[in-house]
Amino acid sequence: MNTSTALHTDRYELTMIDAAFARGTATEHCLFEVFARRLPGARRYGVVAGTGRLLELIRDFRFGESELQWLRDNNVVGTETLDWLADYRFRGNIWGYQEGEVYFPNSPILTVEASFAEGVILETLALSVLNYDSAVANAATRMVTAAIGRPLSEMGSRRANEEAAVAAARAAYIAGFGATSNLEAGRRWGIPTMGTAAHAFTLLHASEEEAFQAQIDKLGTKTTLLVDTYDVHQGVETAIRVAGPELGAIRLDSGDLPTLVTEVRAQLDSLGATGTKITVTNDLDEHAIATLAASPVDSYGVGTSVVTGSGSPAASMVYKLVARRGEDGSWIPLAKNSEGKASIGGKKTPMRRLSASGRANQERIYIGDTAPEAEASERALNVPLIVDGVIEERYLGAAGTALAREHRATAVSELPAGAFRLGRGDAAIPTVFIGN
Amino acid sequence: MNTSTALHTDRYELTMIDAAFARGTATEHCLFEVFARRLPGARRYGVVAGTGRLLELIRDFRFGESELQWLRDNNVVGTETLDWLADYRFRGNIWGYQEGEVYFPNSPILTVEASFAEGVILETLALSVLNYDSAVANAATRMVTAAIGRPLSEMGSRRANEEAAVAAARAAYIAGFGATSNLEAGRRWGIPTMGTAAHAFTLLHASEEEAFQAQIDKLGTKTTLLVDTYDVHQGVETAIRVAGPELGAIRLDSGDLPTLVTEVRAQLDSLGATGTKITVTNDLDEHAIATLAASPVDSYGVGTSVVTGSGSPAASMVYKLVARRGEDGSWIPLAKNSEGKASIGGKKTPMRRLSASGRANQERIYIGDTAPEAEASERALNVPLIVDGVIEERYLGAAGTALAREHRATAVSELPAGAFRLGRGDAAIPTVFIGN
Repeated sequence: MNTSTALHTDRYELTMIDAAFARGTATEHCLFEVFARRLPGARRYGVVAGTGRLLELIRDFRFGESELQWLRDNNVVGTETLDWLADYRFRGNIWGYQEGEVYFPNSPILTVEASFAEGVILETLALSVLNYDSAVANAATRMVTAAIGRPLSEMGSRRANEEAAVAAARAAYIAGFGATSNLEAGRRWGIPTMGTAAHAFTLLHASEEEAFQAQIDKLGTKTTLLVDTYDVHQGVETAIRVAGPELGAIRLDSGDLPTLVTEVRAQLDSLGATGTKITVTNDLDEHAIATLAASPVDSYGVGTSVVTGSGSPAASMVYKLVARRGEDGSWIPLAKNSEGKASIGGKKTPMRRLSASGRANQERIYIGDTAPEAEASERALNVPLIVDGVIEERYLGAAGTALAREHRATAVSELPAGAFRLGRGDAAIPTVFIGN
Repeated sequence: MNTSTALHTDRYELTMIDAAFARGTATEHCLFEVFARRLPGARRYGVVAGTGRLLELIRDFRFGESELQWLRDNNVVGTETLDWLADYRFRGNIWGYQEGEVYFPNSPILTVEASFAEGVILETLALSVLNYDSAVANAATRMVTAAIGRPLSEMGSRRANEEAAVAAARAAYIAGFGATSNLEAGRRWGIPTMGTAAHAFTLLHASEEEAFQAQIDKLGTKTTLLVDTYDVHQGVETAIRVAGPELGAIRLDSGDLPTLVTEVRAQLDSLGATGTKITVTNDLDEHAIATLAASPVDSYGVGTSVVTGSGSPAASMVYKLVARRGEDGSWIPLAKNSEGKASIGGKKTPMRRLSASGRANQERIYIGDTAPEAEASERALNVPLIVDGVIEERYLGAAGTALAREHRATAVSELPAGAFRLGRGDAAIPTVFIGN
């Protein structure tokens, strides 16, 4: 398997570079910007996720002999471009919203300053990472709200591409989930992993009782027993009989949960298992979780809906050329007029305006070459991510993932109450462009 | 980067194995089955995709020192299980629907025969691959139908996780797309790649005319020019002025396509560019493509909707333990009763019944230890994929991908007309279990 990420790229990025080299325009100094024109699903805010992962992938974005040979064999680009690719590593600057930051329509989430060729070549990879990871984080953050403080675990690996699953576990964790079922996500990003047994384990054994006994023998009485393979109430009875009232938890993976959870709680209490927790895992999304707010659920396991963005599987971010350096050193704004896809050119400096009580009330995007200082009521949103080709190490790996999770908690705590409504509607705060 | 796929696994697969080893049940001879209870999106049929990819990932499913150390450090399983994992490679049998085959609710797409431990450990990976790849193929095959023979290209890499994007390109190709924008998919799976230029290329240059000239200088007049950066009709005029009436194609990526395409066709014809083709790429899905059936479109580029399964981003396949070998050597059917998730136990042999004219009219699933011979009116659906741990090579790599694409064309050609309706409804043919 190849470890270079360089061919995770749309062919047209390379053919554009090829033509631009021939024309002498490939080395123009440019600004590219990642933003979303809208929040898919008419949500109230988004959560930026994927940035740390993207930085690592940019580090590995190199054209080795295998990549060059394939491009040569397939006549994708000419010799001059092949030579340039052989020497490619990103040497420009990237700044943007810190991972875990909340965002709104037109928030300039990532800005890339580099030559045209050096910047445009990262478009596909940057969007793949940010669109998927942020789609998951956008869904996950709503589930965290709906869970009103109860812990959530991500267990949707089987409903996502096997590598997407690892990214999804990370994005959900950044958005406030507490654990994942995915072992690779544990290894790669330091995320706590969880899980005990599936229906297959019960079916394998001669009886539910034998299966429970086998699990308890190995994992102890603090484990979680899955009680709905045959009959839930009989399963609960067997579970407590085998494990005793010290059983850690039971898991429900089917049925009409609001009713069932209440019945099972009463049954557990009547059996003296007042400390045994109830975790539920049956096709949950933010709405199903909200419906269970008044039920005695202790924790949630979420699968399909979180890894597929709960109806919005891509965050609709785009990567646009927004400025080109003029001869006098100033940025010349660039924007297209395409119907429904117009963009706003120029260099931008985003700020979040906060009320005296620290509540966000406006996304302010200053347009102009000179970045203004943040006013007292503003929080500056850009952080440097890559400076002259050097990646900011603190955003990488498990430490970077943990930092993003912390930052998301802080950023979300600034949001007005309206941001947490699950219904469709406008962004929680308006985005305002402040021109030069 | 680690190349082992072994930790693309839910933690509970390993804890189940750990408990089963302690109980002495891990070595029970078992049958696991992959199937979907329903076709998400109320579609009429599905297309199996991912099988060839899964076989390669199973080949790489080995626990090296890095994986074992992480499991040890995190106390996931005990010593006996670690020793067993160190020696793990799949030594059992896998058979199933040939990749590219169409499927219906409860079609047993994949069957795994192995010890409990050896089979259950593949659950997460198998479902990740089959659920995502088939979700893409399920959407793509409908787009192919809607395109009434016009070529389709997949260009959604930026709207999917970077590795999912490669898998999506492959699944769309199997389902009948002709090319992809994704270079890695070209390298890894031999899929034709396509693409010329984006809006950024036009914006980079002093004028649209200069951009077009630069592209033509490098890529020739048979290239595709993107004409909607500023004003479409002016863009078309400029394109033909610069390229001449021999221009290969123009691309439209915005606007109200049915109207615009007709106008642009007339404009091209009036400029003498009667051979210049029109390709459209603006947020297409199967319904938008169908709407363009009467418009003079020559080809389609599809992004977001194909890589996200057009509303159904996971195929809802499950991996269930369906039988355990009894002491007399017969299969003991196993099934759970969980509400809404009941399964049907036993070994199964699937056949597709065809009319005298070769039209599919029933999915017949024979339950029983002895696989029946196909009747004259039946086509047997299972093929061996792994025999005693040895993978069938012909399903791997670019050759396997091409074979799957051919098989999909054949399988789809057997379907009744009702299968091609885009509206929601029942499966095109009923699935019938024939018991023993």
